[in-house]
Amino acid sequence: MATDPSKYVFNHTMIRVKDPKASVAFYEDVLGMKHIHKMDNENGKFSLYFLAYVDTVPSTEEEKKLLAFSRPGVLELTHNWGTENQPDFKYCTGNAAESKGFGHTAILVDDIEAACERFEQLKVNFIKRLTDGNMKNIAFITDPDGYWVEIIQNPSISGKSPV
Amino acid sequence: MATDPSKYVFNHTMIRVKDPKASVAFYEDVLGMKHIHKMDNENGKFSLYFLAYVDTVPSTEEEKKLLAFSRPGVLELTHNWGTENQPDFKYCTGNAAESKGFGHTAILVDDIEAACERFEQLKVNFIKRLTDGNMKNIAFITDPDGYWVEIIQNPSISGKSPV
Repeated sequence: MATDPSKYVFNHTMIRVKDPKASVAFYEDVLGMKHIHKMDNENGKFSLYFLAYVDTVPSTEEEKKLLAFSRPGVLELTHNWGTENQPDFKYCTGNAAESKGFGHTAILVDDIEAACERFEQLKVNFIKRLTDGNMKNIAFITDPDGYWVEIIQNPSISGKSPV
Repeated sequence: MATDPSKYVFNHTMIRVKDPKASVAFYEDVLGMKHIHKMDNENGKFSLYFLAYVDTVPSTEEEKKLLAFSRPGVLELTHNWGTENQPDFKYCTGNAAESKGFGHTAILVDDIEAACERFEQLKVNFIKRLTDGNMKNIAFITDPDGYWVEIIQNPSISGKSPV
């Protein structure tokens, strides 16, 4: 059998988003990812946005696609066209009592105090500030759809324990 | 401000699982990840299982924790104790019509035909086989909770286009 599962790669996590402009702006401007690739599906009336932490985004569509599908740590946002114009439209975040499942994505940051201070200045919504609850070294913010994003100190930058 | 968002890392994706024995076995034995770290929370009555594609798992708890929180491509499984003994208990996968949100995780494989053949032999549940639908180069399987896992050819191994 010509397959070796230990060579597989956990490439991406897909979440559906109501308004891709708001979501791409959040993951780029607030969380520092880069939008590396977009795929439109005319028949299915949806678009896929791929974001990741990369230094540079290549210029050709083929290179962008290869970048999106060759590494771990990619976030895929699915936009079903038109949802952004429906005032009452809302996706399930996975954290409501009646529809628990998916929990969150998690981002390692270089300096968690400074990162959270910056999120405050950017008026980001917090589920849990560093000072809330028992765990003083993690925070939870939400993206434009209300999906939870955990914020954790990157121990390889600080030398501090992450959690 | 001492934080540079471009230096952040998309570390992990968390999903809740009903039975960690079944889920850890699936992600290890079927998908080839390694279980690199576990955290138990007695007060909250839950355990966290961290899995990733790594060559080796370090021996000390501190090293395991650092490994889990210092890289992209980590999967976190949350087990709220006791759910495995409740016959009717079920998490929302994010793909049911009434609770859409989270879509899937995605795994790049070395040889997609061989990988899918092996999944068949292991009696893995398929949402979409390679031969189903219009997109003949991706498959979807489910994990023990019914969460969707997309299977994609790794272009950096095959030289073939991924999607």
